[in-house]
Amino acid sequence: MKVDGRDIRTIWFDEHEKTVKIIDQRKLPHELVIVDLKTVDDAVKAIKDMYVRGAPLIGVTGAYAVYLAALNAPDGQIETQYLQREAHRIKSARPTAVNLTWGVDMVLSKILSISDPAKKIDTAQKISGEIAELEVENCRKIGEQGLSIIERISRQKKGNTVQVLTHCNAGWLACIEHGTATAPIYAAFDKGIDIHVWVDETRPLNQGTRLTAWELGKHGVNHTIVTDNAGGHLMQHAMVDMVIVGTDRTTAAGDVANKIGTYLKALAAWDNNIPFYVALPSSTFDWDLRDGLKDIPIEQRDPDEIKYVQGLDRDGSTSVLICPQTSQAANFAFDVTPAKFVTGFITERGICRATEEDIRRLFPEKDRRQRPED
Amino acid sequence: MKVDGRDIRTIWFDEHEKTVKIIDQRKLPHELVIVDLKTVDDAVKAIKDMYVRGAPLIGVTGAYAVYLAALNAPDGQIETQYLQREAHRIKSARPTAVNLTWGVDMVLSKILSISDPAKKIDTAQKISGEIAELEVENCRKIGEQGLSIIERISRQKKGNTVQVLTHCNAGWLACIEHGTATAPIYAAFDKGIDIHVWVDETRPLNQGTRLTAWELGKHGVNHTIVTDNAGGHLMQHAMVDMVIVGTDRTTAAGDVANKIGTYLKALAAWDNNIPFYVALPSSTFDWDLRDGLKDIPIEQRDPDEIKYVQGLDRDGSTSVLICPQTSQAANFAFDVTPAKFVTGFITERGICRATEEDIRRLFPEKDRRQRPED
Repeated sequence: MKVDGRDIRTIWFDEHEKTVKIIDQRKLPHELVIVDLKTVDDAVKAIKDMYVRGAPLIGVTGAYAVYLAALNAPDGQIETQYLQREAHRIKSARPTAVNLTWGVDMVLSKILSISDPAKKIDTAQKISGEIAELEVENCRKIGEQGLSIIERISRQKKGNTVQVLTHCNAGWLACIEHGTATAPIYAAFDKGIDIHVWVDETRPLNQGTRLTAWELGKHGVNHTIVTDNAGGHLMQHAMVDMVIVGTDRTTAAGDVANKIGTYLKALAAWDNNIPFYVALPSSTFDWDLRDGLKDIPIEQRDPDEIKYVQGLDRDGSTSVLICPQTSQAANFAFDVTPAKFVTGFITERGICRATEEDIRRLFPEKDRRQRPED
Repeated sequence: MKVDGRDIRTIWFDEHEKTVKIIDQRKLPHELVIVDLKTVDDAVKAIKDMYVRGAPLIGVTGAYAVYLAALNAPDGQIETQYLQREAHRIKSARPTAVNLTWGVDMVLSKILSISDPAKKIDTAQKISGEIAELEVENCRKIGEQGLSIIERISRQKKGNTVQVLTHCNAGWLACIEHGTATAPIYAAFDKGIDIHVWVDETRPLNQGTRLTAWELGKHGVNHTIVTDNAGGHLMQHAMVDMVIVGTDRTTAAGDVANKIGTYLKALAAWDNNIPFYVALPSSTFDWDLRDGLKDIPIEQRDPDEIKYVQGLDRDGSTSVLICPQTSQAANFAFDVTPAKFVTGFITERGICRATEEDIRRLFPEKDRRQRPED
């Protein structure tokens, strides 16, 4: 995507330096900082401390992390046990992110049988790059699919501004390009449709305020930041035509684990008859899970992410305490939106309702019920 | 209430200095600062800039502001037109707060017919004090009424911790003492019931993080700060036994205007069969309104309240920018929770369901339908 006229992705392999490079998203929106990932430790830190975040980007970072494991194997011996141990360590960096497991296992499965170390390393890098390209292409297709919904609303509103609300950042910063939830927005904007985005700030880490607002602004898309509290009021007063969010993990029955607070927006959309869409590459489906509330583990993060807020004051970047030092805080990172509150999924293959039947109709190859021998 | 061993209220008349004194709540939780209100300008600024906030406290501050108007009348001539102009100015400081109008008009109505200027001033001060005492007594009774609900839950849970979620600050800091939403909590705590409070941080001004957490902590009540996004998740996982919030304005039909985001919590409570109570002194009912969504004007405040967050860093209190400088923000201060999502009202007179019939049964003297001559 364009940033100040320069084409950039969230992660790439620098052929010249033979290094994996990422945007350190913790520094946005005030600074654009590029960081080198040279070791598995670097990659784990980048995933855990959220230099990178967002399902597709975490998946690609995980893939490249396996490449880094191969590259940095002790004595150049890339033993299977070592690789598996490192893969486990990478996957543990964000336990809720199914894409991370997917990206790591994809690379691992392609290189374990290769005996030549150099070929192993080379293949790991190549496969990681292919996964990145696949994600870009998936996001492009999600944009194409979702565009049809926005075009329909625009026609219904006789060309008046289409009002979209989004939570967290499922933008290109969460992916490689285009984004998931933002892909239809960018596609509509690029086609000249009048569109405006309500950006939930997304406490505690303010991914909306810091990232979504930044990337929409850089692309020229009209947007307004609101608190996470405001969405219900906007929907009650017909100021939202549709909600689009991303997802970190989606069950085969359509339950959606996404950034904490997503469920509250889904309830408000439901109460006000506003379509609530989840945009996702199909890699985000966890075909083994059905009951999201019961089966998806919810990560609890450092309470200091709530107690301290990062921002810029006159003297530069700083972190401020916003509560009594002695109060405790609890930091649940995700919640689960039951399928019944989801209008539909916008996937790279098409749009479907959030029911097990419709999802499986779109992805029949995943239908395990028809393959009991699995 | 006790703060560091000292008895304190949110507003009081200092007999010795002949001055109205308030806590500047903008400085909490890091500093306890007392401010003198000497003029109507002081009082309007205190209300508008939220040195004081919360329906009952705003009402009492409005009452004392009329006293200050009388005290500072030009040339000691307290003309009716002047008083009415000042009263209008005071009421305009927070247009959504029905208590403000109530407090101002109460004092005004008692002094307009008095001709002696000294008596006018003296009466205004006396009536303001009586309103303050009335609010204290109302809050005490709200606590007594709400206690019965908490005791019942505690019995049902066989003495295990009763989990209460609250949004914003409807604590003693929003009142004079006890609070409204917190009154049953303090009453239960003081009676030795095991109770824990989930404190919504309440963006953008963080009244939960700054004020509710502070006052609960000072009183010794167990509490945990969560983001406004977290309540739905907590309720889905049975970590909340009841929600208690305050209200800024309540229609005769039971619609509740309260801090933005209240509606989202009500939806989550409704979806998870968790009782959602609104605690209020009956002065908060606006008997002339029925349809909250249509009839209650929602104040929009300065977008910078969203774009900048106040807190403490190493060098002291500072304000940090948390979004791109160029992004716009919209700051809706309240939302309306439709009566159908409210389990009941806890008032100084008793508990009732959120229906017009039940409310009027509790306050039959307000039933205008039976007095068509009004």
